[in-house]
Amino acid sequence: MRRAMAGVLRDGQVFVPNPAEGSTLLNRGSFGEPRSGGGVTLSLLEAVYLAETERLQIEADGAAVPFRDLLRRANVREASFEIRYLVYRDLRQRGYIVKESTPPIDFRVYPRGGAPKVTPSKFGVRAISERWVFDLDALEADVRRAAGARKSLLLAVVDEESDLTYYAVRFVNPRGRATARPGSPPPVAHLIEDRAMVLDEDEALRLHANGFYGRMVGRRLQLSLLETAHLAKIGAIEVRRGDTNRKVPFPALRTQARRLQPDFDLRLRAYEDLKARGIVVKTGFKYGSHFRAYEGDPDRAHAKYLVHALPGGHRGMWPEVSRAVRLAHGVKKELLFASVGDEVRYLELERVRP
Amino acid sequence: MRRAMAGVLRDGQVFVPNPAEGSTLLNRGSFGEPRSGGGVTLSLLEAVYLAETERLQIEADGAAVPFRDLLRRANVREASFEIRYLVYRDLRQRGYIVKESTPPIDFRVYPRGGAPKVTPSKFGVRAISERWVFDLDALEADVRRAAGARKSLLLAVVDEESDLTYYAVRFVNPRGRATARPGSPPPVAHLIEDRAMVLDEDEALRLHANGFYGRMVGRRLQLSLLETAHLAKIGAIEVRRGDTNRKVPFPALRTQARRLQPDFDLRLRAYEDLKARGIVVKTGFKYGSHFRAYEGDPDRAHAKYLVHALPGGHRGMWPEVSRAVRLAHGVKKELLFASVGDEVRYLELERVRP
Repeated sequence: MRRAMAGVLRDGQVFVPNPAEGSTLLNRGSFGEPRSGGGVTLSLLEAVYLAETERLQIEADGAAVPFRDLLRRANVREASFEIRYLVYRDLRQRGYIVKESTPPIDFRVYPRGGAPKVTPSKFGVRAISERWVFDLDALEADVRRAAGARKSLLLAVVDEESDLTYYAVRFVNPRGRATARPGSPPPVAHLIEDRAMVLDEDEALRLHANGFYGRMVGRRLQLSLLETAHLAKIGAIEVRRGDTNRKVPFPALRTQARRLQPDFDLRLRAYEDLKARGIVVKTGFKYGSHFRAYEGDPDRAHAKYLVHALPGGHRGMWPEVSRAVRLAHGVKKELLFASVGDEVRYLELERVRP
Repeated sequence: MRRAMAGVLRDGQVFVPNPAEGSTLLNRGSFGEPRSGGGVTLSLLEAVYLAETERLQIEADGAAVPFRDLLRRANVREASFEIRYLVYRDLRQRGYIVKESTPPIDFRVYPRGGAPKVTPSKFGVRAISERWVFDLDALEADVRRAAGARKSLLLAVVDEESDLTYYAVRFVNPRGRATARPGSPPPVAHLIEDRAMVLDEDEALRLHANGFYGRMVGRRLQLSLLETAHLAKIGAIEVRRGDTNRKVPFPALRTQARRLQPDFDLRLRAYEDLKARGIVVKTGFKYGSHFRAYEGDPDRAHAKYLVHALPGGHRGMWPEVSRAVRLAHGVKKELLFASVGDEVRYLELERVRP
């Protein structure tokens, strides 16, 4: 076994004074920063990694620092050291060159064989504990900043068993080819509790063929609550009560819908935005998300996206996010979070292996 | 096209007075009940189905009742008629003989070619709208009642687009082959925020080999918060603070765990129950559930179950249930809800095609 290098711990950094050892660290793996007067300065992350892999022996005040003490000091000195270390270690073990960066990015990651200041970094990584809050606003800001620097952003989420999941995250602009031309006069849809039906078969078929609305059940067309509200709002159907045949104006329909579905307004906003993009939207109930989104005819191709609408500024839990992404991944769809604020923005989260 | 039979609507039932037509209905599909004086009496569900498939023409007070009026009257007369009808219709179209039953079971379903009173029913079906509350207590009671009658229970959940998902639901008793023999003296685990690590390599390897606890990260063993709490509680580790090396007694550990994980007690109860059954338990974070559960060595076989702990009497939303089942199905695992009350009961929900 090769002899370990010698490092000196002082003020939260580790100095490697020997110029030859310093050069080796810099040239093989880009560890540390050159130090005026020779040798290199290592961060605590780098020092712990090199100590764990037995390339570095550390002393402080003239006495050897055992590994467990080094780890303890690092954890005391730096917030969430353990989470960041698990990510740093994993990326290093995958052969990447990893350098610490300024928040909110924890690491700049360079391709195997690349080097900081020579090669552009491959991606920025943020280390996250599954127990931390999933903050939609903050995430959007991070993605925007990374995109501005032409970097892709990777989230490394550490679970309670110290296992890692990586998510690539980016804004996307979903577009579809569906166009709806409301018929005239609008067909009548009868509202029964939380759904409506178009009983006239010709009208039913026309509405279904024109924008892929609803579902034919026998000879009638069943519309979901959202479809009913959307079509009523744009004047493409006339809604009447199933029992009395009385007209239901849109505000009354909306009131009923809000009672049935507490997040009705949020869903309708996302639904309308997707429709305006030419997307065919169906319920994502079976997948536990809000929508399946198709670029064209849903009978001819699978849904490309699962879309989950979140109010702008939403704060949630990481396990919910991992579940949604996992599920979409399992059915070969892309997961989009629709951030519904003044406008609707789509954030794609994709599980990746870096 | 064969001539439609004639039915008379009165008081929420439809009479088919013609004895020959009545026999046909009874013998081909077991529609209706024999009526004293000849013919049969049909329920509204049966009448709507026969009218929709154009086998029945209905009149009331001497005038023909158009299909839309029949549907409207049925919806006014019977609570959640539409939901039950969608399920009835789907099962009939799959070729089953379907008879209405007493709550909480909506339908008794007989195999193709079978007949009520002759063949035992194949399963009981409960029709549910995805908007209704998922009531754990009520579901457990339904499963218990069905099991008592030696029937299997199927839940037919109707989504907002009138599409159906069937779930078979039953109690299961998971059992595994893992036994843990706590070492003595117990190894020291250092607590750092929400995880602990055993730094002594020999102790780490011994604890990991004995019950598959934790995860080796380099030469140390990382324990999750739950593992740490469980092992501390049974005296299999001694927990010390990572920074000061001071002992952390179990009550202090529990207080810290509750702060980090609001549902800590619920999870620990389920975890302990699974351990007592010889199950190897790992986090289900990647699947958005609480636990992966293995019958034996997790390095040699895949997890059999995903387990999600719910407090006894939990009331939730059906989309959450469909998401959990879908996810487990996608990764070829069985989904168990652990109902944590005085005891822990395991309810399996499996997506099936009847």
